[in-house]
Amino acid sequence: MTKVAILGASGYGGSELIRLLRKHPQAELVGFSSRAYAGRPLSAAWPHIDLHTPFAEVEEAIAEAELVFMALPNGIAMELAPRLLAEGRRVIDLSGDFRLPSEVYSSWYGIEHKNPNFFERARYGLPELYRRDLPGADLVANPGCYVTAATLALAPLAALGWDEDVAVSAMSGVSGAGRDAGGTAFAEVNENLRPYKPAGAHRHTAEIERNLAQVRAQGRWPVTHGELRPRPLSFNPHLVPMTRGILVSAFVKPGRRLSAADLREAYGEFYQAEPFVRLTEELPQTKGVYGANTVWISPRYDERAGTIVVFAAIDNLVKGASGQAVQNMNVVYGFEESLGLDRHGLWP
Amino acid sequence: MTKVAILGASGYGGSELIRLLRKHPQAELVGFSSRAYAGRPLSAAWPHIDLHTPFAEVEEAIAEAELVFMALPNGIAMELAPRLLAEGRRVIDLSGDFRLPSEVYSSWYGIEHKNPNFFERARYGLPELYRRDLPGADLVANPGCYVTAATLALAPLAALGWDEDVAVSAMSGVSGAGRDAGGTAFAEVNENLRPYKPAGAHRHTAEIERNLAQVRAQGRWPVTHGELRPRPLSFNPHLVPMTRGILVSAFVKPGRRLSAADLREAYGEFYQAEPFVRLTEELPQTKGVYGANTVWISPRYDERAGTIVVFAAIDNLVKGASGQAVQNMNVVYGFEESLGLDRHGLWP
Amino acid sequence: MTKVAILGASGYGGSELIRLLRKHPQAELVGFSSRAYAGRPLSAAWPHIDLHTPFAEVEEAIAEAELVFMALPNGIAMELAPRLLAEGRRVIDLSGDFRLPSEVYSSWYGIEHKNPNFFERARYGLPELYRRDLPGADLVANPGCYVTAATLALAPLAALGWDEDVAVSAMSGVSGAGRDAGGTAFAEVNENLRPYKPAGAHRHTAEIERNLAQVRAQGRWPVTHGELRPRPLSFNPHLVPMTRGILVSAFVKPGRRLSAADLREAYGEFYQAEPFVRLTEELPQTKGVYGANTVWISPRYDERAGTIVVFAAIDNLVKGASGQAVQNMNVVYGFEESLGLDRHGLWP
Amino acid sequence: MTKVAILGASGYGGSELIRLLRKHPQAELVGFSSRAYAGRPLSAAWPHIDLHTPFAEVEEAIAEAELVFMALPNGIAMELAPRLLAEGRRVIDLSGDFRLPSEVYSSWYGIEHKNPNFFERARYGLPELYRRDLPGADLVANPGCYVTAATLALAPLAALGWDEDVAVSAMSGVSGAGRDAGGTAFAEVNENLRPYKPAGAHRHTAEIERNLAQVRAQGRWPVTHGELRPRPLSFNPHLVPMTRGILVSAFVKPGRRLSAADLREAYGEFYQAEPFVRLTEELPQTKGVYGANTVWISPRYDERAGTIVVFAAIDNLVKGASGQAVQNMNVVYGFEESLGLDRHGLWP
Repeated sequence: MTKVAILGASGYGGSELIRLLRKHPQAELVGFSSRAYAGRPLSAAWPHIDLHTPFAEVEEAIAEAELVFMALPNGIAMELAPRLLAEGRRVIDLSGDFRLPSEVYSSWYGIEHKNPNFFERARYGLPELYRRDLPGADLVANPGCYVTAATLALAPLAALGWDEDVAVSAMSGVSGAGRDAGGTAFAEVNENLRPYKPAGAHRHTAEIERNLAQVRAQGRWPVTHGELRPRPLSFNPHLVPMTRGILVSAFVKPGRRLSAADLREAYGEFYQAEPFVRLTEELPQTKGVYGANTVWISPRYDERAGTIVVFAAIDNLVKGASGQAVQNMNVVYGFEESLGLDRHGLWP
Repeated sequence: MTKVAILGASGYGGSELIRLLRKHPQAELVGFSSRAYAGRPLSAAWPHIDLHTPFAEVEEAIAEAELVFMALPNGIAMELAPRLLAEGRRVIDLSGDFRLPSEVYSSWYGIEHKNPNFFERARYGLPELYRRDLPGADLVANPGCYVTAATLALAPLAALGWDEDVAVSAMSGVSGAGRDAGGTAFAEVNENLRPYKPAGAHRHTAEIERNLAQVRAQGRWPVTHGELRPRPLSFNPHLVPMTRGILVSAFVKPGRRLSAADLREAYGEFYQAEPFVRLTEELPQTKGVYGANTVWISPRYDERAGTIVVFAAIDNLVKGASGQAVQNMNVVYGFEESLGLDRHGLWP
Repeated sequence: MTKVAILGASGYGGSELIRLLRKHPQAELVGFSSRAYAGRPLSAAWPHIDLHTPFAEVEEAIAEAELVFMALPNGIAMELAPRLLAEGRRVIDLSGDFRLPSEVYSSWYGIEHKNPNFFERARYGLPELYRRDLPGADLVANPGCYVTAATLALAPLAALGWDEDVAVSAMSGVSGAGRDAGGTAFAEVNENLRPYKPAGAHRHTAEIERNLAQVRAQGRWPVTHGELRPRPLSFNPHLVPMTRGILVSAFVKPGRRLSAADLREAYGEFYQAEPFVRLTEELPQTKGVYGANTVWISPRYDERAGTIVVFAAIDNLVKGASGQAVQNMNVVYGFEESLGLDRHGLWP
Repeated sequence: MTKVAILGASGYGGSELIRLLRKHPQAELVGFSSRAYAGRPLSAAWPHIDLHTPFAEVEEAIAEAELVFMALPNGIAMELAPRLLAEGRRVIDLSGDFRLPSEVYSSWYGIEHKNPNFFERARYGLPELYRRDLPGADLVANPGCYVTAATLALAPLAALGWDEDVAVSAMSGVSGAGRDAGGTAFAEVNENLRPYKPAGAHRHTAEIERNLAQVRAQGRWPVTHGELRPRPLSFNPHLVPMTRGILVSAFVKPGRRLSAADLREAYGEFYQAEPFVRLTEELPQTKGVYGANTVWISPRYDERAGTIVVFAAIDNLVKGASGQAVQNMNVVYGFEESLGLDRHGLWP
């Protein structure tokens, strides 16, 4: 049993980690931190949970932990994680702090990186691409939610060089904004649909571009700190009146004529034997992955317009955050990769 | 006062026409038809309405009418409208029957057109572009819902030739599928998001392309039966868990470098003095046009990717259907164009 | 034209007043106050509205106003209204400050009343009961949202003494909590249903009881400061995942056997000729009054259990707040009572 | 491993059984029937599931099964179950066919019972009350969804005789109406709230009354065919715009004065050590039991009105249907009662 602590356990990333790890056969939950709730029972933040361990300050929460999941706002892990590593603990970080080279990070996040050299130590936790880079890692940077869906939708095209020009329309449920996010009051979100931070304004743009740049340069199994062949794309997120779920619709000019069969073959080959990639002729629906760690992908070829259209659906809190973090734990420790994770959504 | 009948008054297009025309100072509602409800009071279909005139068969509903709004399934107006015209009535048709040349119609709708020559008689009812073609028309083809939003989002670019390559991501609330549509059960739609008929499979593709082809060839004020300069685009609709509202996000390669200021200027000039076009720096939200006849448009330039991104929001039942039909009535009869129509949405 | 100011125009009560009064043929909007937005355009709070008058401080907003609508948090009007009255303006107050005798107010609201004697000056603005008390009033206390629905559901029974024992289950959309309310984040409210402040903990209990006590003592047309015959009831509100709408389900032991026909007759007689009371055999639905000023009521007799069950639906922001305030303006000024108000909801 | 078949596997009861039993350590899924989908893969009805066994006709689906879950419309199990029992299989039936004495059944369901004597053979599958009656049963009648919540909310009061007069306000998500139910189109349900079949018109009234009549007569651990002490109550369901969840709010006159402490003690004692009863001071929320088999109960005493108010929340598809059916399987076979079932909901 691996002793595990969750930092930031009063947010959605945290509660989803609790839900998954509570039933994980190799994890023992030993501590939960929350600045707002320290000293109070878990039910103070999560009325539906009746575990006995209360929220604590960070020090107390991690005291016994061998593995620490950090589900904290950006800018905190960059200082805390190095200390935990020095104490011999492993860290899986759900923030953006270790996903990008520090200068790229700073320019997109508007935060100066306090420990720029630790980026080199981190491994990028998207197992469907970086699996070979992860076993034994002690610092894992868990990808962004949009990034996971968009990268997995487009990677097979990047590997083949078929992604000459890319525009992404991404649609997310509201839980991605976190529990305390302003602007997500029910009466403002329900019966409403709106873009936000479009056209190069959203941070995840850089992370998607970086991943695809690595696949473009390194092929099927990139490593975190390998070669890049960058190319900009247009990333455009929208807020949808639902709680969970991201759908990415990507529009790609392949720079050549191709057929639907070419596409099917390309994706089928790229993702063969991936436990959490569901590739179908049928169009993805976010409900199909509700609560599950699956990414559901379907590529199409718009013959008339000469455009590849790829759809990918995930649960933003699972494959887009906490589920993927658990998958990373499994890969790092050499457990069966799907341990403790569902492949089927809750329907309806 | 114009005596008005509504055919198909038990569907959403019909109920929205009732809502708007009941308060229209130049319209007198004299008849409502519904195959399913003929002989029963309006409240049988619409428990919230207590008008006295009951649903009737078509003949009875139109007996006194000078103007007939047809909100019927595709394939009916093509036979019925010619008869109504022969009787000296005017028709505003909300179906697809008179929007496209008959051979184009047949290939996209899978229905053989029974009166192909009547397409020549019809005027296309998108006043923001075809206004000069509409006064006095006796047969108006009211545009499709997606078509209205996508055309108005892209027309300024087509006029300038800046739309070399276009992909459209369109997101719609469920009411667009009509009242009796299968697959729209609450438990299947709520907390779900999915594409449907993407990549050249949706009928509205042809209509959007046709409109833009006319603006491309004819400029700011095209006429229904004028010159075309066609170009295919990729149109991709999604079903969103909300009742009303369409958001179109269009991604365009301009074939040249430009600036945000160029875009602002192009749109500002194109749409100056349009009563129902709301052009803002702020990003559109469907809630802002809830129940209103406004199209809310905001174009952006994604500098990094060299991509124009245009967002446009409408209420699919108002500007996307019944409100636009009333606007067409106003233009046809020479009434003040915004008579009986709201410019502001119901918020929240 | 009556010159009108709206205080608290950046909240939902305020925006709904703007929506209704903008189209009211006897009202001219001359000022809007908002502490948070003073000096900024209306669109800063309401992106869908493009009126030219900006938000202002209170003094500036009321400068020209003859009638002031106050849509402010509890505890402010009690100090501000007396000053406005002294300046010769009329006030319609949407808060709780003038609805209850000051000692009752203080015990339920936990706020000491600064101007207890002004309660005597106020008239209670529920026209369906207190209409005769309202013409010419200069201080109107607009009822609470739940109170409006529950009082109108139960008044006919109170008038007949058939309300020996009453329990109310009230269900409200989220907008009733206001725009900035904590605990109404979409991800917490959607797919969730919960009671709150039940069993005597909600303030509206006192107001409902007071209204029914007056009908019990004074009959069909009570006056604000008339006789009371009080009786406690159990009031239990619930939060429902929707934006607008209140449904009240009231369970009443009549203290005698009766029939469905008795009930129908009692309600029919009590509410004859009321423009905004819709009495039907068909069960109410909140969608039927969406955006409208109607209360939709249907009483039933549960023969097996000997229980009267009354259902009443309103739009909490219209008949439950701003619409009723406009109705009160109409009655106070002697305008046609339904001026500027809809009787039919927006469906779907 | 118990070989299990699911009849009616293309409905929500069926898909929820698949979800739960797929992970149940003592169950092996050997067959799925569906009239509409026989011969097609599971994904034809459930795009998110990729099990290999296809839908089949009943005969094929049950061929190997030792235990058959029947999730079929009312009126089918009454003929099919006797045959399955004769073949030596066990049956857990989710319909109403074996829940009530045949004459009571017929009068509420409007269906003549074809095998009235099998009611005597059935055991009523509400383990929190009838647990001692269930081990080894071969025909289990799984309770109705509303019935489960209302019975568990009220049983402690019935046991003490504190339920002299009872009115129930029950609110349900839409999935309770089944997958193909008319009147549940998204655009009609969303932003809408309405009562239906109130005041003695809903079938579940009889079943709730029967359960409470047995607790009243037999005390804490009734048996299915034991003594009754009946008393009518008023049951009033409402449709709420959400997919899953039932909240029951029950209003009870105790016929005596009591205190909040009395209530707490009564409920605490009645439900001690129940794995799926969550008794809290905090008010229940349906989200807290989303996907879980828990009933969350909180009783209150409304001192002013002398009314007991009890709130109970369940997931209608889990504790209200398929989860309880699995719990019954566990009790019948002597497995650990919570095997394969969650106690915590999916939040958010």
